[in-house]
Amino acid sequence: MNKRPTRITIIGLGLIGGSLGLAIKKSVPSAVVTGYSRTASTTDRALRTGAIDIGTSTAEHSALKADIVFVCTPVRAVKDIFCTIAPALKRGCIVTDTASTKAEVMEWAVKYLPAHVNFIGGHPMAGKEVAGIDAAEATLFQNCVWCLTPSAETSLDSVKRLTTLLRKLGTRPLMIDPARHDLLVAGISHLPLILSSALVSCTTRSELWNEMARLASTGYRDVTRLASGDSRIYTDICLTNWQSITRWIDDFSKELQRFRRLVADGNEALCEAFSEAREARDKWLKSHRQ
Amino acid sequence: MNKRPTRITIIGLGLIGGSLGLAIKKSVPSAVVTGYSRTASTTDRALRTGAIDIGTSTAEHSALKADIVFVCTPVRAVKDIFCTIAPALKRGCIVTDTASTKAEVMEWAVKYLPAHVNFIGGHPMAGKEVAGIDAAEATLFQNCVWCLTPSAETSLDSVKRLTTLLRKLGTRPLMIDPARHDLLVAGISHLPLILSSALVSCTTRSELWNEMARLASTGYRDVTRLASGDSRIYTDICLTNWQSITRWIDDFSKELQRFRRLVADGNEALCEAFSEAREARDKWLKSHRQ
Repeated sequence: MNKRPTRITIIGLGLIGGSLGLAIKKSVPSAVVTGYSRTASTTDRALRTGAIDIGTSTAEHSALKADIVFVCTPVRAVKDIFCTIAPALKRGCIVTDTASTKAEVMEWAVKYLPAHVNFIGGHPMAGKEVAGIDAAEATLFQNCVWCLTPSAETSLDSVKRLTTLLRKLGTRPLMIDPARHDLLVAGISHLPLILSSALVSCTTRSELWNEMARLASTGYRDVTRLASGDSRIYTDICLTNWQSITRWIDDFSKELQRFRRLVADGNEALCEAFSEAREARDKWLKSHRQ
Repeated sequence: MNKRPTRITIIGLGLIGGSLGLAIKKSVPSAVVTGYSRTASTTDRALRTGAIDIGTSTAEHSALKADIVFVCTPVRAVKDIFCTIAPALKRGCIVTDTASTKAEVMEWAVKYLPAHVNFIGGHPMAGKEVAGIDAAEATLFQNCVWCLTPSAETSLDSVKRLTTLLRKLGTRPLMIDPARHDLLVAGISHLPLILSSALVSCTTRSELWNEMARLASTGYRDVTRLASGDSRIYTDICLTNWQSITRWIDDFSKELQRFRRLVADGNEALCEAFSEAREARDKWLKSHRQ
């Protein structure tokens, strides 16, 4: 019956917002996508690449009449965006986000969004270390798990509408508790980015770095890849998920000390530890990655 | 004057030995490459792929009449190979290796190789996490730095002959002191592989792993890539370079604790730490990587 095109708004047009726009325009061409970035040249670029159909000069304006609003800014900007768009949101509108931590975002939604909208926290498990609209790709979310954290107040119908859209984009929606989400991603996403960055500082701050730099190869490049990510986004993640992250740093430190002891002891138990890690990773690759 | 083809022997036909054979046959087609692996089926495979021209059933036999011998086994097998081939090596022959640590190998060469051969330690700064002859590629060493650790006794002429061959293969030979080499690679190569493996054990041993496994994505995959490497080779590396490696683990642990404090403190200094790491890595990528 309702044949009018879905009106989707994307606030924040970086790697994630830009890729989302491109994916929507590719998979749901009938949707009308409105976009807002605090940087006008980014909005222009999103218009030119076809990631959005309409650009607005304020976040509030972009949210008017929207059926679904995606907030795709770094975590700590989400709160301000909620406050700004709250008066503009129409009754029954779905609001979601793509930030890497969910517990605080859920609290902000309760506090700052009107009760007549449906908020569902979101987090696509995809990304790359290059930030910004120029790195956006329509296929970034292809086959990725997209975490969703609805609250008890969210209507089932709105969850269904959002998951239907996300499935059309080729993603795999997964319902999860926000606190649980934050604990899990602290281990498989936030801990790795801290290890990557700490490895870079530890080596590049050394007085041996100039000599080491010539020898560093693909192994160093890959383990440090996440260190080239957006420091603003990383900081926001850490500041909104510090409890889980410090817990994982402590677990990791214990594990590193175990490896240190095995290296210093110089016996065959070290080989078993390496084998065990290899088998666990290979098993994960086989069952969870394409 | 001397128009007879160079006779090159490769002992150990895994990823490195196999790739070396393919690279030599591609860049110096006139060379006659003899190969030995302790596994007969590996020798057969090397013959079929064209990585070697002749296969032998003993290491000693493979070294007879060789102008240059490459020992491409894991570090701790190098000593036995030296003892085995010593009686077969002809006067003036060049012996080199490709093991990831150099100080112990240099001592073994003095102890177990005859004085009438020229030993030059070697270590190509290339590799991948997949082991074995089936992963071998003619282009594996393309543009890679190839560390060489000649001793005071090595003739200059033999160093020149080896570097000429390595340049023909597209590599960049670099002379370096063995102990210095081991200290530097402990930071940019051995520390990363331990971090990678420790991250895998720390996460996969957790009672949360089944849930985390579904969410782990490209970031986790890349930071843990080295954990899929050959555990035998890794163990040999650690046992022959434990002093430098434990030193780097200690440096890294301090740096990780600095990040932990910044995360727990929750202030903007964390953003600076991430930015600094990003800039240092990007600078390295720009000046040292293609």
